[in-house]
Amino acid sequence: MGSEHPSETGMDRLSLNDDDKKVRDWLANEAKTLGCSVTVDQMGNMFIVRKGKSTKENVAPVMIGSHLDTQPTGGRYDGILGVMAGLEALRTLHDANHETEGPVGLINWTNEEGARFPLVTVASSVWAGLASLEMAWNCTEITAPALDVDGPQNMKQELQRIGYMGEVEASYKAIPIAAHFELHIEQGPILEREDRKIGVVTGSQACHWFEIEVRGRDSHAGTTPMEARMDALLASAKMIAAANAIAKSEQGLITTGRFKALPGSVNTIAHTVQFTLDIRHVRDEVVASMVEQCRRKFEAIAKEDSELGVEVHWTTLADNAAVNFDKGCIQAIESAATESCGNSNAWRHMTSGATHDSCNVSRRCPTAMIFTPTKDGLSHTPVEYCKPEDCILGAQVLLGAVLRYDAARTDLA
Amino acid sequence: MGSEHPSETGMDRLSLNDDDKKVRDWLANEAKTLGCSVTVDQMGNMFIVRKGKSTKENVAPVMIGSHLDTQPTGGRYDGILGVMAGLEALRTLHDANHETEGPVGLINWTNEEGARFPLVTVASSVWAGLASLEMAWNCTEITAPALDVDGPQNMKQELQRIGYMGEVEASYKAIPIAAHFELHIEQGPILEREDRKIGVVTGSQACHWFEIEVRGRDSHAGTTPMEARMDALLASAKMIAAANAIAKSEQGLITTGRFKALPGSVNTIAHTVQFTLDIRHVRDEVVASMVEQCRRKFEAIAKEDSELGVEVHWTTLADNAAVNFDKGCIQAIESAATESCGNSNAWRHMTSGATHDSCNVSRRCPTAMIFTPTKDGLSHTPVEYCKPEDCILGAQVLLGAVLRYDAARTDLA
Repeated sequence: MGSEHPSETGMDRLSLNDDDKKVRDWLANEAKTLGCSVTVDQMGNMFIVRKGKSTKENVAPVMIGSHLDTQPTGGRYDGILGVMAGLEALRTLHDANHETEGPVGLINWTNEEGARFPLVTVASSVWAGLASLEMAWNCTEITAPALDVDGPQNMKQELQRIGYMGEVEASYKAIPIAAHFELHIEQGPILEREDRKIGVVTGSQACHWFEIEVRGRDSHAGTTPMEARMDALLASAKMIAAANAIAKSEQGLITTGRFKALPGSVNTIAHTVQFTLDIRHVRDEVVASMVEQCRRKFEAIAKEDSELGVEVHWTTLADNAAVNFDKGCIQAIESAATESCGNSNAWRHMTSGATHDSCNVSRRCPTAMIFTPTKDGLSHTPVEYCKPEDCILGAQVLLGAVLRYDAARTDLA
Repeated sequence: MGSEHPSETGMDRLSLNDDDKKVRDWLANEAKTLGCSVTVDQMGNMFIVRKGKSTKENVAPVMIGSHLDTQPTGGRYDGILGVMAGLEALRTLHDANHETEGPVGLINWTNEEGARFPLVTVASSVWAGLASLEMAWNCTEITAPALDVDGPQNMKQELQRIGYMGEVEASYKAIPIAAHFELHIEQGPILEREDRKIGVVTGSQACHWFEIEVRGRDSHAGTTPMEARMDALLASAKMIAAANAIAKSEQGLITTGRFKALPGSVNTIAHTVQFTLDIRHVRDEVVASMVEQCRRKFEAIAKEDSELGVEVHWTTLADNAAVNFDKGCIQAIESAATESCGNSNAWRHMTSGATHDSCNVSRRCPTAMIFTPTKDGLSHTPVEYCKPEDCILGAQVLLGAVLRYDAARTDLA
């Protein structure tokens, strides 16, 4: 694909839009042709299950899960690879007429990205009992189409509109899972840089999101001396640069992705700015320290020359502690990876930099993840890329891990 | 007025709306009761003239000029003070039955604010031959009333609708002026801070507007190491902080009022940021130097760690050279100020931070301005305030300057 057509390799499938409905309908249909059941819960999560040998009633399935929604300028692998590999696993079992011990299946989690409805992994959070159904249903989209005469919609309205408001409660109690495996692109450069094929993911970074509101005073850009300003935009710019320096000194990650300035006129000093901070580290205590350093530094900036007296308000948008995945799931992946790769040097242990539905699910059942290499470490962009042979290897490790975990179940008798 | 009713002290008289028609009709009527002629040109500029002693034909008048339109959330002084003080000057001459040497008058310039039709001081620009009549007439409003079923109107349509499309060409050739004096609130804090009553304005700052577009690469905030990023937002934040430092070192003004980040997602590094720079100084060469320093510094930032390789593109939005007012007009104001204030310490020389119609007019006739103190330096807001006694003093200085200039005319014989 020529670089002059970057969007041709990208996806813009925002959660619960018309394209999301289309791919959900397609997935449900594929599942049915493989003889699987399809259950949709009240958050639109799709649970596809293939029966196993066990005749015991209400046996929880070993599930493969990921998501089909994307960022507005997303790629073709983030989430999608995991669902497609899961579907391929079910196809492989079907074509081979292979009977697993217990049931095995596939989950498509709703709104993982949080790009349209600004709550990341909200539907798996509700399933895991970490967020309330009401709160999730009331979450209003931030990216309403320009021509949408009805104005912004909330998740409940959009679940109903596209026909994916299921009747089953979105809960680990109503829909129990025996174990959860997720295949995902690394979205970072480490595997590529070390020339390895598989990441065995042992846990996830802590990730805190904040919205910072800086309130100053609007005045005329031509007549207000520098020392008489309460410039909310200048203060915010300095805060973002300072947060970056703090992240580097702690070997953590701090990112500002959203920034809004009011009133937004060339010759008027901004009275209000809202910007986000995404703060991550593998250790909870380092995240806490970076937050504290930012708070102190921002207050100091608010006392500087052209910003004297601006007010800084912090709102927590998300607050995810570091996650440690299940040893049994990790071992199943290690074993499958060594076999599929031919040797144990082709894979390594890793910590996930991003949040995934697996982080929520791991609170309620044994969980682990598998990473595949990502070209230049780039994700959330149309140039996101994972070689076909790496996708295949990842899917093999995924199925291998599921079969190992299934074979070792002791809860089916 | 209680602070719980801030809008009660404000004005929302957008150019050429129904309220603007009312105040224009009122002004024309007041002028006629004083025996003055009223001429309206093709831009709706109103020229009110009171005859002088001179019997010579086609003698150009000494004019007082300002504007009656306001920002949508404007105050009661910006522009209005200058026109009201001019009317009061004509009333004083009328009541005293005083004959000036040449004719003396008052101008109400159309759409000074550029708030409704987004071209600041456009009507005086057309009069001065700096902008074309066609361009001005075709300028479309940006703030159409929500219930306006006819959609946005242009200046020509609105001039016709309210009956202020005159027949005389809007030109310094068709309507020559001998000199132009403007009384205006300072819109800055200097006079108040120094406890002075009058600013004798010797010119206007150079003002350059740029839009900077920074192009990086979007990627995942949780998985992209700091050193592998092309973070357009972080780079922009550093650039804004750096521009501020450059402004301070040069004792100039640099402001960023507009800032837009794409794609605008919490956990995606921004691929594109657009922000504005408003760069001002009284000396053109210092503005040029600040622009050059910003260019060099921005290129250096584009080579730093987390921004390596971002591209920086500059677009010029406006480019106004510094203006130096007329020595004769300035001397007339100095003399009047010393007399009205009782001593020469109550006034000081100043440079205007904002653009005014006088900046355009000064290209075609001797011009200078008078400033009055502004509470807390605040303008373009309902809390804009100038004490009644300061307004009166300003009006006295205005009339005194006009009479001095008129008395010294040598072109009337």
